[in-house]
Order: sequence, then C-alpha cells, then structure tokens
Amino acid sequence: MIDLRSDTVTRPSPGMLQAMLQAETGDDVFREDPTVNELEARCAALFGMEAALFCSSGTQTNQIAIKCHTQPGDEVICEANAHIYLYEAGGISFNSGASVRLLPGDRGRINATQVAAAINPDDVHKAVSRLVCIENTSNRGGGSCYSFEALLAIRAVCDANALGFHLDGARLFNALVARDETPQQYGNLFDSISVCFSKSLGCPVGSVLLGTRPFIAKARRIRKLLGGGMRQAGILAAAGLYALEHHINKLKTDHIHAAVIAGALQHCSFVENILPVETNIIIFETRGISAPDLAARLRKENILCNATGPDSIRFVLHLDITEAMVHQVVKALHSIKKND
Amino acid sequence: MIDLRSDTVTRPSPGMLQAMLQAETGDDVFREDPTVNELEARCAALFGMEAALFCSSGTQTNQIAIKCHTQPGDEVICEANAHIYLYEAGGISFNSGASVRLLPGDRGRINATQVAAAINPDDVHKAVSRLVCIENTSNRGGGSCYSFEALLAIRAVCDANALGFHLDGARLFNALVARDETPQQYGNLFDSISVCFSKSLGCPVGSVLLGTRPFIAKARRIRKLLGGGMRQAGILAAAGLYALEHHINKLKTDHIHAAVIAGALQHCSFVENILPVETNIIIFETRGISAPDLAARLRKENILCNATGPDSIRFVLHLDITEAMVHQVVKALHSIKKND
Amino acid sequence: MIDLRSDTVTRPSPGMLQAMLQAETGDDVFREDPTVNELEARCAALFGMEAALFCSSGTQTNQIAIKCHTQPGDEVICEANAHIYLYEAGGISFNSGASVRLLPGDRGRINATQVAAAINPDDVHKAVSRLVCIENTSNRGGGSCYSFEALLAIRAVCDANALGFHLDGARLFNALVARDETPQQYGNLFDSISVCFSKSLGCPVGSVLLGTRPFIAKARRIRKLLGGGMRQAGILAAAGLYALEHHINKLKTDHIHAAVIAGALQHCSFVENILPVETNIIIFETRGISAPDLAARLRKENILCNATGPDSIRFVLHLDITEAMVHQVVKALHSIKKND
Amino acid sequence: MIDLRSDTVTRPSPGMLQAMLQAETGDDVFREDPTVNELEARCAALFGMEAALFCSSGTQTNQIAIKCHTQPGDEVICEANAHIYLYEAGGISFNSGASVRLLPGDRGRINATQVAAAINPDDVHKAVSRLVCIENTSNRGGGSCYSFEALLAIRAVCDANALGFHLDGARLFNALVARDETPQQYGNLFDSISVCFSKSLGCPVGSVLLGTRPFIAKARRIRKLLGGGMRQAGILAAAGLYALEHHINKLKTDHIHAAVIAGALQHCSFVENILPVETNIIIFETRGISAPDLAARLRKENILCNATGPDSIRFVLHLDITEAMVHQVVKALHSIKKND
Repeated sequence: MIDLRSDTVTRPSPGMLQAMLQAETGDDVFREDPTVNELEARCAALFGMEAALFCSSGTQTNQIAIKCHTQPGDEVICEANAHIYLYEAGGISFNSGASVRLLPGDRGRINATQVAAAINPDDVHKAVSRLVCIENTSNRGGGSCYSFEALLAIRAVCDANALGFHLDGARLFNALVARDETPQQYGNLFDSISVCFSKSLGCPVGSVLLGTRPFIAKARRIRKLLGGGMRQAGILAAAGLYALEHHINKLKTDHIHAAVIAGALQHCSFVENILPVETNIIIFETRGISAPDLAARLRKENILCNATGPDSIRFVLHLDITEAMVHQVVKALHSIKKND
Repeated sequence: MIDLRSDTVTRPSPGMLQAMLQAETGDDVFREDPTVNELEARCAALFGMEAALFCSSGTQTNQIAIKCHTQPGDEVICEANAHIYLYEAGGISFNSGASVRLLPGDRGRINATQVAAAINPDDVHKAVSRLVCIENTSNRGGGSCYSFEALLAIRAVCDANALGFHLDGARLFNALVARDETPQQYGNLFDSISVCFSKSLGCPVGSVLLGTRPFIAKARRIRKLLGGGMRQAGILAAAGLYALEHHINKLKTDHIHAAVIAGALQHCSFVENILPVETNIIIFETRGISAPDLAARLRKENILCNATGPDSIRFVLHLDITEAMVHQVVKALHSIKKND
Repeated sequence: MIDLRSDTVTRPSPGMLQAMLQAETGDDVFREDPTVNELEARCAALFGMEAALFCSSGTQTNQIAIKCHTQPGDEVICEANAHIYLYEAGGISFNSGASVRLLPGDRGRINATQVAAAINPDDVHKAVSRLVCIENTSNRGGGSCYSFEALLAIRAVCDANALGFHLDGARLFNALVARDETPQQYGNLFDSISVCFSKSLGCPVGSVLLGTRPFIAKARRIRKLLGGGMRQAGILAAAGLYALEHHINKLKTDHIHAAVIAGALQHCSFVENILPVETNIIIFETRGISAPDLAARLRKENILCNATGPDSIRFVLHLDITEAMVHQVVKALHSIKKND
Repeated sequence: MIDLRSDTVTRPSPGMLQAMLQAETGDDVFREDPTVNELEARCAALFGMEAALFCSSGTQTNQIAIKCHTQPGDEVICEANAHIYLYEAGGISFNSGASVRLLPGDRGRINATQVAAAINPDDVHKAVSRLVCIENTSNRGGGSCYSFEALLAIRAVCDANALGFHLDGARLFNALVARDETPQQYGNLFDSISVCFSKSLGCPVGSVLLGTRPFIAKARRIRKLLGGGMRQAGILAAAGLYALEHHINKLKTDHIHAAVIAGALQHCSFVENILPVETNIIIFETRGISAPDLAARLRKENILCNATGPDSIRFVLHLDITEAMVHQVVKALHSIKKND
C-alpha cells in the first residue's frame, strides 16, 4: 500500500528504533529522563529559545500553548481553516474557554492587515483579543509557506496590540527547507512554537513546544493537567533526536516527490485546481468524478489518500514513500486517465 | 436628546412604574415570588411551551440556553454576526466550552442548506455539532425577519441530525408583529426561546427563557451558577407583565417610525446601502463622511446613534421615540444634507 | 407567617419602594444609569476602595470575584462550609475551573496557621494556591464574627505568599455593627469585598463587589459574560442607597431579637448546642425530635424556619420580623415545650 | 541508587524493550495500530468490559473518565486524599468544571454510609452529585486495599442514586494479587476503571481506561481534545502487553519486599506509626528527626525516598528493587539506628 493519507503514518525506521532501544531513560515527571532533557535542550538551542517541553502530540503542544497565552473569555485570531480550530476537536473552547476570530486566508495564510482589523475594541460586549496563531506550512492551504516578511508584519501588529503570537509548526521544517530559512529566525519572531515529530520527521510519537522559561514552566503544569506527563518518555524522545539528525535533510526529497506527482496530475482530465505545491502536500479538486470515488479508484491501485471534501483530494508525501512508489502513483494516475 | 443608539435605553413609563410598585413579591430563589411565577406562567402559555424562567438579561437567557443544550467540546452553528457570538463577550466558550461554526448569512439569516452542510461528521478531530441558534429579528441584519418556511426547513435539518434549535428572540415580538405571526408558531418550532423585555418592550430589566420542563429545571440550576437568582424579582417581573399587556401593540408604531426615517435617509447624499427596513432597526452606510463623523454631526442635532463600523450607522426605534422626535430626525437629516 | 428561614425574604418597605419609583435611570450597560453609578461610588467611598460594581446577587459578586482572582487550575482556600463552596451550586469549578482547599473552621472561621499550612508547594502535581476567601459573618457558623486581629494575621499570610484575599461579606454589616468596626478597616484589608443588599439590608435584589479599578474593570467583563449586565438597574440600586441610609442602624435590633429568641431556646428541652449568638442568626440542634419534625411543628404556629440538617435548625432575624413577632416565637417555643 | 520514591521510576527491562522494538505499529489516531488494538482488546477481555482506550498516563485516564461521567456543575465524591483530587493538579475542576465532595477515609478508603450521606439533595444551591471515585490500592493510605464487600456496598448506593462509579486502579493489580481477586470481579462492578502500566507493572508510559463501548467512544474524543492521541503508539502498547504477560506475577515479590522493610522499620527508634503494609507501599512517621532530614540521611546510604509531609516518609517497592537492595535498605536502617 502506498499511503498518501498523511505524513503521520510513517513507521519508525530500523535506525530510529535502534536509537529508541538504546535511549537512556528516567522518570520525566521528576525531570530525570536524560534523553527527554536532551531533546528539549537541543530544540531550544536550535530555535534560540529559552526552553522546550516534550509532549505526546502536536494537538497537545498547540492546545497547551493556547491555554498558556489566554484566559477564558479571551479570543484567538486564526485562519478559518486552521488546524487548531478545525481539527483539534473544539479544543480552543474546551481547554481554554477562549473564543475564535476566524479570518479567510490565502491558501491558509492570513496577513497583518486582516489581523489588525480583527482586534476587538475595549468593550464589555466583546471577547478580549489576546493571541494570533498561524500555521506554517498550512495543511489546508496545501502545504503553503508564509513569506518571512508577512510574518514580520503580523509580529508588528501583535507588538502594537499586546497580542501573543504562536506558531503551529507541525510542518515547520518543511517550510524551513522549502524557503531556506533557519529555526533561529522563527525562534526570534514567535512567543511560542509547536513543532511536531510524528509528521514529516517520521517519529512514532511526539511534539515539542518552545517558549520562554516561565512560559514553559506554565506549559509543564498544563501538560500535567491534561495527563500528558509521561514517565520514561526518553524512548520517544530518542526518536526525536534521531529525526533531527537524520530526517530533516530528507524533506527536500518529499517536496520533489510532491512536485513530480503534481506534474502528473496536471495532465489528468479528472483533476483541476491543483493548489501550488510548495512542500510535501498536494491538494486538488476532482472533475467529473467525486473525491470519494476517485479515492476508491486509487485504492484499487493500492494508493491510499484522503477525500478532504466532496470533490477535494489531498496527497501527503513522507519518509515512507520511495521514488519507486512515486512512479507507481504517476503510472496509476495515467492508467486511470486512459481507462476513463 | 433623541436616543437612537438602542431600544435598550427606554425608561419605564409611569404606568409600568406603578405596576412595579404594586407588585406582590416573595423570594424567587425559593420560587415564592407570585409575580415572577405569573410572568413565567403567562409566557409559557403565550408560546405554548411547558415552562419559563425569568432572568436578568437576554445575554443570560441565551447563555443559559446554550449551556443547557451543549457540553464542552460541542459546537454551536450560528450566523457569523449573531449576537450570541459577537456581542456576548465570548460567552459561548466561557460559559459552555463550546466551539462555534459561523455561517455567512443573508442579512443575518442562515438557511437550511447551509446548516446541513455545516454539521460535522462523526470524527474525533471534530467538535460535535449539537445546536443551531438563530436570531429573529436579526440585529446586525438590520432588524430582518425570517420567513417561517425558512425556519421550518432548518427545524427539519435539526430533527434529522439530532440538533437542538434555539431562538434568540431578543426582538421576536417585532418579528411577530411585522410578519403577523403568533408566539405559538414559534413555541411549537423551537426547543428553546429567549425573549427580552428590556429591548423594544420597554422594561428596565429582564428576559425570559422558554423550554420544556426538564430544560427549564436545568436552566434554573445554571442561572443559580451564574449568580442570576434574584430574590424579590417580582418588581421587575411586574414590568414584564405590564409590557405584555400594553407594549406589544406599540411595536407597529416603531416600525412605521423606522420606515419614515429610512425614507428620509434615501434622499441623503451622505447615505447609501440602507438595509431593507422590516422592523425597528435601520442600518446604512455613510458616503463621503465616516460613520463616527456623521454620528458626531447628529449629536449636535441632539440625536444619538451608533457607528457600528467605520462607515456603518445603526438607528434603533423604540417606545421612547415619539412621532415628534421622528420628525426632528427627518428634519436634522435634511439640514445636514443641505449644509454639506 | 413569621418567616425565619432567611433574611433574604424581606419585602421592600414603602419608603424603599418610593425611592425605587423615583430613581433616575439610564442604560447601565452603557454606564449611564446615574443611580447605579451613585450606589457604586457611595459604596467605594464607604469602604475606601477604588471602585464598585452592582450585581444581581451575592452569589454573582462572589463568583465574579473568584473568577477575577484565579485562573483554571488555581486553588481557592476556604472554610469547609463556606457559602461559596457549599451553596453556590459548585460555581467555583463551573465558573472559574478552580479547585478548592477546604479547612475545618471554628464556627466557620479559619485562622492564619491553617491557611499557611494549606498552601501548595510549587509542584506540577498540585493546583496553584491563589486565593483565600473568608465569610464574615459566617452563615453556617451561626452568624459568627471574625476578630479583626485574626483577619490581619490571614492577610499577612496572603501577603507573604502572593495570595489574593476576598471577603464574602453577605452579612458584613451585621459584623460591623456587632463588633463596632468600620467599612474602611475592611476596605484596607481585603483585595475584594462582596456585600449583599438583599439579605439583612432588606433590598429586593442586589449585591456590590468592591476592589481596585482594574479589578472592577475585569469584574465588569465577567458580569457581562454571566449575563449579569442589567439596563435600567437604577430602580434596584435606589433600594440599595435607601438601605445604606435607613437600614444599617436597624441591624442592632435584629441582633437583640436573635438574643431574645436564643434565650428562650436555652430553656427548651428539645434544644441543645445553641451556637453562640453574635448577630442575626441562631443555629441549634434538636433533641428528642428531628429537625424537620420541629420545623413542621413550628409551621403550625405560623413560624417558618430551615432544617439545615437532620437535627439542626437555623433561625434568621431580619427587618420584617417585629418585636411582636419575636414574642410570638418565644411564646410558641414555650407552648411546644409544655405540650411535649 | 536504590530508588524507593515511586514505582513510576522503573526502566523497561531488556525483554520489554525487545518486545517494543518488534511491535507492529500503525497510526492509532486512525485506529490502525495493531498493537494498541491488541492491548485494548486484551484489557477489555481481562476485565470483562466492553472496550478500552490506551492513554499516556494514569492521570489522563482518570481525568478522561471523570469528564465522561460528569458535566460542569456536577460533583465528584471521593476520599480527601485521593490522587484524583490531590495529585492531578486540580484537574477535576480544570478539565471537567466539576466540584468535589471530600470524605475522610480509613487509610484512603471511604464507605457506603459516608457516600450515601454525601449525596446532595435536589436543590439549586447545590452541585449535582454525579460520580463516586475510589482508589484501590490507595496511595496515601499506604497501599491499602478495599474489601470487595465494601465496594459492593458503595455500588449499591451508586445504583440507588444514579451515580457513576469509577475506579482509579493505578495499582489495582497490586490489590488483586494481595486479595486474590480477579479483574472480572472489578469489571462487573465499576462503570469505568483506569489501570496504569507505568507504575508497578514496569512500563515506561501508558494507562488503559475501561468502560462500555459508548463510554470509550466518548473517552476517545476527550483524549483527542487533551492532545492524548498518539500515532505509532504500538511501541508503548507492546510494553503493556509484555507486562500483562510477565510482570503481574512479580508483584507478590514487591509485597514481600515491602513487608521485610516494614519489619525492619518496626525496630527503628526514629520510626513510628507505620501504616499496615498490604501491598508495595510503606508509609510511616518519623520520630525525633524530620522526614526531610531522614530522607537526606538515607540518600547518603544511596537510598532515595519521598518525604510526603514534615514527618511522613513513603517507600514504594517495585520491579527494579532486587532482594539484594532490600537487604541493603534493611542494613542501612540498622546502621542509622545504631549511629543516632
């Protein structure tokens, strides 16, 4: 099976498993797991931020960050299809009691002008604008990347209005690679960053939240409240360390694979409106066939993908997709084209 | 001063004050206030619903209703500019921990097709769609009214998907008068209804929530949790009883006044895009002058109004606006027109 | 009927009603109700505190205060039978997501040593100690009063540990009268104070929360979130102003009445363990008869009271209990004694 | 170092690590991880319950269970020192908005009479009693076990009052071994059970929640909300399967070790009030030396333990404590005795 449903489906490689097996561990609730401590320190250093916290998922790091930035009755400004709003089960309200202000984005990206206009006046009828969250790359935007200038402009609005600025960086490393940017640039810009290890980095479990020391101290409390404190978590953190070492340089390959498949899609009569492919995600609309039907058709060719709407399909490239598989996908697309 | 900022600004009339002074009272937390009990019974009967609860504001009845219908992690479907979302301080998240799904309306009104499309699939990534809230008349829609057929269609979607259906009827009596509909029609249709007495009905304080007996029992608990239990509230309820008797038939006059002023606005060069005037609210855009500037200009003519946006103005007619005042407004508009 | 169930049952006197009828009003959500503004200013001045907020109940002022002092995950330290914990419907958790640390009191009063010992260490397993709440007089303590020295000692612990200090002063004026203390003493000591007008002060509805200006600004937002914003609330506030003028000096009478009845109870064979009577509340245990049975027996004598436990009875004196009624109660107690 | 601070400190054994390395994995958020599925099925079968959910900690399974049983404004009845109240960071309020009713237990164990008396009447002033939680073994009770008859009696009270009944079984297997009881007995009795794999069972990470199918479906949603959904969690679940196979029969050894050390403590002049040792926990008070001082003294002998109060010490036995280490502890206690 060629699984293009998500980059979360990767299985740990033998090298990663070996690293996990050999990890030195301790009780992380007592902060005595040396491997967790090392991953947290390494991530903080990489981004030039004060502190880091290892958590069990990207949803958890995002939700903890939102909770640390806001109080019940506050409002979070984000894009209308942001993962934190659309795919985290209503967690912004559930965990933080915070309201949302949803902005229509350009392939998932919002801009400084929109943010400035979305800030509520000081009026008891209104929730208190407190936090701006952006997602880079944007999942629903088809793996689109922000320009760094756009981010600087949003930061300026945040500064002028005392708003926090959080980055859902579930696929941040894809953006860094695609845009040739550095983690430090982002560390300098944001108040908090969530990066995920179980997406394109290929780890089984894990996400890291970055911020100032007091922010992460608060985050550690919230993690405990959510039951996210794990004991000998070094086994999982070892995978993260391995991924930082061995998997970041492989993201480029995923992006090339995505471009190759997107190229093939352009010649398919049953495909239209392919979103520009900037990283490892391809989103397109179906023509003359529903998305579920096309997904079913692909499954017969041993290709799994997600119908993200009635006529919208998403392919996600990742570490477990080889060049040979990419060619198989291209071939399958051609064969569907011919037979229909 | 001619106060067109809101119909909440009305002061109790001498007749109403007299009724309040003479009200028989008791401790309503013990459910021993006969006047509160009478108002609740009268409202329930009027709408053909099982039970009613007197509360201190329309925000409170709405927030209690949402809380009773939902659990944290659930999602409320409403129009993007609904009062419950935009003007209740983020209360849906704060009080209920519920997420919102915001639909773009036609002058504040959503339709059954939109609602059906907004229901989340059964997927752990998604909040649980639980409740549809509509507002009739719609404040931000310029006092627009739903057709009853449109409401029946939404009800059908709710039934098919086990969703609750709540009416924010802050200005429901305006809609009933404008559309020549009956409270019973609405009582039959909705799971819960909030009606407000301190808007166009002219009472100083108060709102009533309607529903089934178990729903109202639950609502009574939530009211206590919010600190909304009042003791000798009969004094306020007496105003409500008075308004039901004497003020509903005066709403027609407000609607006529609104039409007269809207007619005058149509000839003002500094006005455009007047929303169709169906009840007691007029919303229009300014041309060649900002809304705050026009509001300041009107204030010089002793007319108060709200700039609801950079170039959007709202006038609200109500019990304390006499025919003479309406003429003064018309005259003032003419004079501004001439002088500019 | 002689209603000793609570001092919340008082009905507004003719003088108070007259004051309410003549109150100048405005829309308090716009902060334009002159009578509400006057009551808030008068209360702030009386206590020497910066600002005040008029709310619909003592539960609401307490709950708003707790919310303003805490965040979800914080812990409130209070007596095990405090009104905020026992009789506010679980509101500390519902409204504030805060945990409670319950201390066994001496007739409802906790001391500085207990408070100091109840503060959690800085440990992620533990809620964050944030606020100490005391109740003066203590309802379940039988109207007991704190010594001012005891309060100073708790204040010192709060200061040393960065804890907020809130006073549930539902019956604070009773304590002030009984102990010959001034509102200013309390205003200087506490971060926030809730006083209730619908208990021994005899108003139909209303409570005032006191604090610093920023605290009250925050409180005003929370009041809006709870739906506690009222429009022409001046009608209710006028009763509060009237009570400050005319009813505080009547509290002494209630205390004398309580002492008279307590004296009679001491000679009743069916009564034991009368808590020392310091203000307007009498709590005692029944002997040889259950509390509900004794309450039923008294009801036959036209006396209403609360069985607060299987063998615990509470009498509360108030403005609507005349000297003649007190004598009737004494007589009834004697007659029960004789007949049993 | 001989680490007696907690049974959470165990490191995975080589056999367990091997099982983890070889685990078949998949994306558990899509429910495609065969090892997680197997562990959940195996646990459900073991307890004779319908369904199970693998989570990242015992705190998470407890908090999810409480959330599934309650709504904000409900009340949870538990022992005053229960882990869910005392060591889960205030999570009952934070995650569930639920109030607590705290009962003084006999070494952590509450009884049916206490529970029955703690149920609130149907009164808007009171939180709604909804759930009883017990802990078996009780951590703060020194590893004490309930008699099964006592649990049956509490179940009867729950049934009679429509209360849910949850078991915090963080160390349930210790109780089963000590009392010679079966998982099925417990599965039949409780509405939900949380069992922990990272305590005495020796796994690095993981806990399982058991309940009916609809309960676990709801729990899965809450787990997602808390960010507890993990991807290739089979690696962790494999440790759980290994522990069920190989570690349950080793608990008896921990209990014997605890008894041996407790025997030695009985002859120490600096020790008093050793709680009866029923399983793998020893709690005692210090005499003539503070608990922190004794802990520091033991640390010099390479023994780590927790001072759980100013003069209270806890030792916890577990898989990584060998017989030789137990002898070393005994020897160290003797040596301290002699030298002091």
